[in-house]
Amino acid sequence: MSNTEVTKVTAEEIRSFFRKDVFAAFVGIELVEAGNGRATARLPLHDHHRNGLGIVHGGAVFTLADLAFAAACNSYGRIAVAIHCSISFIKAAQGNFLLAEAREVSAGPKIAAYSVRVTDGAGEIVSVFEGMAYRKKESWRP
Amino acid sequence: MSNTEVTKVTAEEIRSFFRKDVFAAFVGIELVEAGNGRATARLPLHDHHRNGLGIVHGGAVFTLADLAFAAACNSYGRIAVAIHCSISFIKAAQGNFLLAEAREVSAGPKIAAYSVRVTDGAGEIVSVFEGMAYRKKESWRP
Amino acid sequence: MSNTEVTKVTAEEIRSFFRKDVFAAFVGIELVEAGNGRATARLPLHDHHRNGLGIVHGGAVFTLADLAFAAACNSYGRIAVAIHCSISFIKAAQGNFLLAEAREVSAGPKIAAYSVRVTDGAGEIVSVFEGMAYRKKESWRP
Amino acid sequence: MSNTEVTKVTAEEIRSFFRKDVFAAFVGIELVEAGNGRATARLPLHDHHRNGLGIVHGGAVFTLADLAFAAACNSYGRIAVAIHCSISFIKAAQGNFLLAEAREVSAGPKIAAYSVRVTDGAGEIVSVFEGMAYRKKESWRP
Repeated sequence: MSNTEVTKVTAEEIRSFFRKDVFAAFVGIELVEAGNGRATARLPLHDHHRNGLGIVHGGAVFTLADLAFAAACNSYGRIAVAIHCSISFIKAAQGNFLLAEAREVSAGPKIAAYSVRVTDGAGEIVSVFEGMAYRKKESWRP
Repeated sequence: MSNTEVTKVTAEEIRSFFRKDVFAAFVGIELVEAGNGRATARLPLHDHHRNGLGIVHGGAVFTLADLAFAAACNSYGRIAVAIHCSISFIKAAQGNFLLAEAREVSAGPKIAAYSVRVTDGAGEIVSVFEGMAYRKKESWRP
Repeated sequence: MSNTEVTKVTAEEIRSFFRKDVFAAFVGIELVEAGNGRATARLPLHDHHRNGLGIVHGGAVFTLADLAFAAACNSYGRIAVAIHCSISFIKAAQGNFLLAEAREVSAGPKIAAYSVRVTDGAGEIVSVFEGMAYRKKESWRP
Repeated sequence: MSNTEVTKVTAEEIRSFFRKDVFAAFVGIELVEAGNGRATARLPLHDHHRNGLGIVHGGAVFTLADLAFAAACNSYGRIAVAIHCSISFIKAAQGNFLLAEAREVSAGPKIAAYSVRVTDGAGEIVSVFEGMAYRKKESWRP
């Protein structure tokens, strides 16, 4: 769990990098905070996030969890790309927003694993997401 | 794998139901065909589907695969809701569209499993998606 | 997360039920404790748990995590059967035993989700396991 | 999907390597064939493969699928280690054996993905397994 890489990536640098994430912005996702293998993202819910049954679309929930995961695993400055994600849908979301909190399970030299919990406006768990990333040597910093 | 339910759900009925999937439409996904536990969906790629690294966002790929899965598992008329999905990201997409093809692995009385293959404009596999659904007794037909 | 079922299943009843788990016993797994949606299991490591590379076999790690999951999701007395499991292999195990701790993520009327953490003799995380179960109406109690 | 590595690994070399897989042998698994990203393994079923409900243990099914996956992804001679596996349990096994067939979904320079189908003596699908492996540079050949 420890990550001994010397790094000076700031929260603002991470946020700035994720501002380039056009799809996340298109969906309406906000990166709340990120750093040291953790990240929190938020999705205010609107009608266009729903599916044919009127409930929040699994794709919207996944995209939110995925952004928190991406921010957490890229928080050391090295490029990390998702190789596998798994998501359990626990209950339909209530309230008018979703919150995704990603935490690091492990970060090896090549492979890192993250767990993301998605809760709704009622504070209840909507989804549990597990992501594995491949860590490249390159940095995403300009 | 056999599904002996007598059903008269037409491809047009399924398409009509999925026209109510506001999030899929928002993302730009088209349901190409669906019926008898199978479905194909298509996503023409635009700039707003990309992430901060310039590659197609995992959330867009997932949402496409998820729609094909949803159309396949709802193709008998009974409401089926996703309980678990797992997705492997194989390579970055090339070309200007993605295609997702869902096929039924099994359909029991309560639980059904589907496998979805996502290919890109170059005909290469971009992602492999596995979905499990819980089948309700109710129909989504009006 | 709350589970309001009135139940009088004792830890001893659960242990007694899992004593019938012949495969877990064959592999050498011990159920340490179980109750209220949680369980802990232990596997003392021997040569026959290793693979061709000399490291603890993924099948042994999975079976240990699966037993903790099964004990946790059956801890209310109702039969619960695994429908999907996902496991990440973080690092090779060190030391002479593995410990699996299962906790409930959610328990709905039909579907329940559990998260299991497997640590080794050095106290480090070896694997992370997520399990979903289908909850039957029947009890496993005689 | 193509794998352009020049290799002379024979089926007999692979079988010989997997004879060192002590846990698979302990469980009773036989490697039927392996080569070029594919493998088939077989498990004759006995009483010690069952759980407390009398059905074949998920850990036994997983270990069988995992061996087919391991043989397939190690079939080019390079060491490949599992990083993530996901398994769906479709139905309880019937008959007196299980068969696992692994096929390659993709094999990149570092990451490879495999799909494994487990069928029972009645020829029906019992489980679907997806495995991702990290490919090391080293060979397992002596």
